[in-house]
Amino acid sequence: MTELSQIITGFDLWHLALPVVSRRDHGIGTVEGSCEIVVLRLTAEGGAEGFGEASPWSVFTGTPEAAYAALDRYIRPHVVGRRVCDRAAIMADAIRAVAYCTEAKAALETALLDLEGRISGVPVWALLGGKARDTIPLSVSLANPDFAKDLALIDRIKADGVGIVKMKAGFADHAFDITRLERLAKDHPDLDVRVDFNQGLEPFGAVRRVQDVASFAPTFIEQPVRAHHFDLMAEIRASIDVPLLADESVFGPEDMIRAVREGICDGMSVKIMKSGGLVRCQAVARMAAAAGLSAYGGDMFEAGLAHLAGAHMIAATPEITLGCEFYQAKYYLAEDILEEPFPCDGGKVTVPDGPGLGIRPDIDKLNRVATCRNAA
Amino acid sequence: MTELSQIITGFDLWHLALPVVSRRDHGIGTVEGSCEIVVLRLTAEGGAEGFGEASPWSVFTGTPEAAYAALDRYIRPHVVGRRVCDRAAIMADAIRAVAYCTEAKAALETALLDLEGRISGVPVWALLGGKARDTIPLSVSLANPDFAKDLALIDRIKADGVGIVKMKAGFADHAFDITRLERLAKDHPDLDVRVDFNQGLEPFGAVRRVQDVASFAPTFIEQPVRAHHFDLMAEIRASIDVPLLADESVFGPEDMIRAVREGICDGMSVKIMKSGGLVRCQAVARMAAAAGLSAYGGDMFEAGLAHLAGAHMIAATPEITLGCEFYQAKYYLAEDILEEPFPCDGGKVTVPDGPGLGIRPDIDKLNRVATCRNAA
Repeated sequence: MTELSQIITGFDLWHLALPVVSRRDHGIGTVEGSCEIVVLRLTAEGGAEGFGEASPWSVFTGTPEAAYAALDRYIRPHVVGRRVCDRAAIMADAIRAVAYCTEAKAALETALLDLEGRISGVPVWALLGGKARDTIPLSVSLANPDFAKDLALIDRIKADGVGIVKMKAGFADHAFDITRLERLAKDHPDLDVRVDFNQGLEPFGAVRRVQDVASFAPTFIEQPVRAHHFDLMAEIRASIDVPLLADESVFGPEDMIRAVREGICDGMSVKIMKSGGLVRCQAVARMAAAAGLSAYGGDMFEAGLAHLAGAHMIAATPEITLGCEFYQAKYYLAEDILEEPFPCDGGKVTVPDGPGLGIRPDIDKLNRVATCRNAA
Repeated sequence: MTELSQIITGFDLWHLALPVVSRRDHGIGTVEGSCEIVVLRLTAEGGAEGFGEASPWSVFTGTPEAAYAALDRYIRPHVVGRRVCDRAAIMADAIRAVAYCTEAKAALETALLDLEGRISGVPVWALLGGKARDTIPLSVSLANPDFAKDLALIDRIKADGVGIVKMKAGFADHAFDITRLERLAKDHPDLDVRVDFNQGLEPFGAVRRVQDVASFAPTFIEQPVRAHHFDLMAEIRASIDVPLLADESVFGPEDMIRAVREGICDGMSVKIMKSGGLVRCQAVARMAAAAGLSAYGGDMFEAGLAHLAGAHMIAATPEITLGCEFYQAKYYLAEDILEEPFPCDGGKVTVPDGPGLGIRPDIDKLNRVATCRNAA
């Protein structure tokens, strides 16, 4: 306890634009050129450091500018000067300090956990309940409007041992979705295929389009319509035999209550960037399990630091049974920000066992790609 | 049509910190020192200008930094180069361009309407359906933790003809709320008193606290518990004879559907800063009326420019029957930003009849108090 009573004295931020290797299309928007994240470093009075990443997507959770301002101006006063051990109290204050900005709150909790783990010598997964698994099956998403490039990506990831893909649908016409599913079924019958619409379908006609996709029997179909269309989600769910997942419809535990009551899905894509932290994300997964629903470890456009946070959280949450999609650090970013590669081989993520998150960001890389930096 | 086919060529922003005359406490947070807004100026190729205001509150709708970035980076590309007449299409694009940031979207629609009105020589209320009223009854809020100062404010506003007050509750202990209600009932029986908790009550014990307040028979009681506690709102509503209003529970039409279905309230506080625009705010008020609910013209911490937008919207929306609270420009800001005073006398707001919003911001004032300015 003595060590964890240290005061948090440092609070530094980097806003980064990380080049990506291809364009990716989704039902709610396109990512091209780069993705932007905000990295937080907390420093305790003894010199220990903890890192966390906010991975916003402007059309989904918010903008990087909003996440940066949330941390820099609205959350900072609730952190600096507090004790490392006061994580739960700090998070409660941060959650109320600013509306939305769930990625900023996830970055804060990640950094607090990393700091606590570094000081006490235990991994973050130990602080979240202990290990339920050593590895997590990896899914890679197919979202390139040029499907030939995704076919080349499939060859590459299969060579790496990846056995799960998630095909992004609903960003172009229906025929393009069906053509790709036919091709996957024919050429890659060994793959575990999931389909994600990212809210892309107009309500009118959505049931029929999803039924067509369901005829290919993917492992699940994710968020076909806009987040707030709970009635239509329930209707679609009732119309297909394939499990339906909610993503944008469920950010945190408050949404989860409604999702269960209204029967909108068979499982959830859980993300620390939606729930506003790792502990709240575990709560969503546990509520899902209590209702007989499954959970999948989704992500945003993240770098390896956010992947690490998600991997520790999933390691400590047995209720998340459908694998994860922490593929960007290896397959989508031109260069990740960690000191050593995010541990992702043989089609699975290996959960680090070192203190804290186990791997640190490379400060030189952060400084090199920062578009905006604030060292407190 | 020829005139309204003009291209929008200018898109300028000011981030302002406006000094306020006192501290104000609310269930979800305190405002002290200054309130911050973002002002948008659109310019058409012929030189006409339209103005709009985003009035964020960091604990409620979002931060000024998020509103500024939403307009500057994510919404701007959907506006510059488009025709003035394409308001509906521009708004549809802006709404999808960035998550949340409803105040930024309200500022955009206000500026588009002002610009359209200036060019065509018609008031904004005419573009929103025509006038239902020439004046709107004014409510002034009592939120000073020093109640003696609010009593002095009451003397001042009564001398000005104001007959409605809204007492902010739930930010201190229950006795403080009851003491103030007793004093108002005793010394000011002529006032129309409403009570607003701004989500301030913990769920446990909330029903009883609201019942105590209801025993004073205020005109309505607003948002006693957190926004997402729809079940508890319905339970509280069933437990009192006084009308219950929803504020934070209903941002836009999507929430309104749920509010009606779940019977959480007898009326809504409608605000363009929550709904993300004037047209969507009218939709909320009309949905309320269709369900037999009343509507009240609420606001955020606004300057006169946002008040003008709200006044035009309410003028054209007969369903909003409970008055408005556009008092800040006159009673809360040390200095407003308009070229002439926001028209608010004799306890009512007078709806301007000039082209567009009828009154412009004073550009010198904007430049003088801007903390951050971006002229495109």
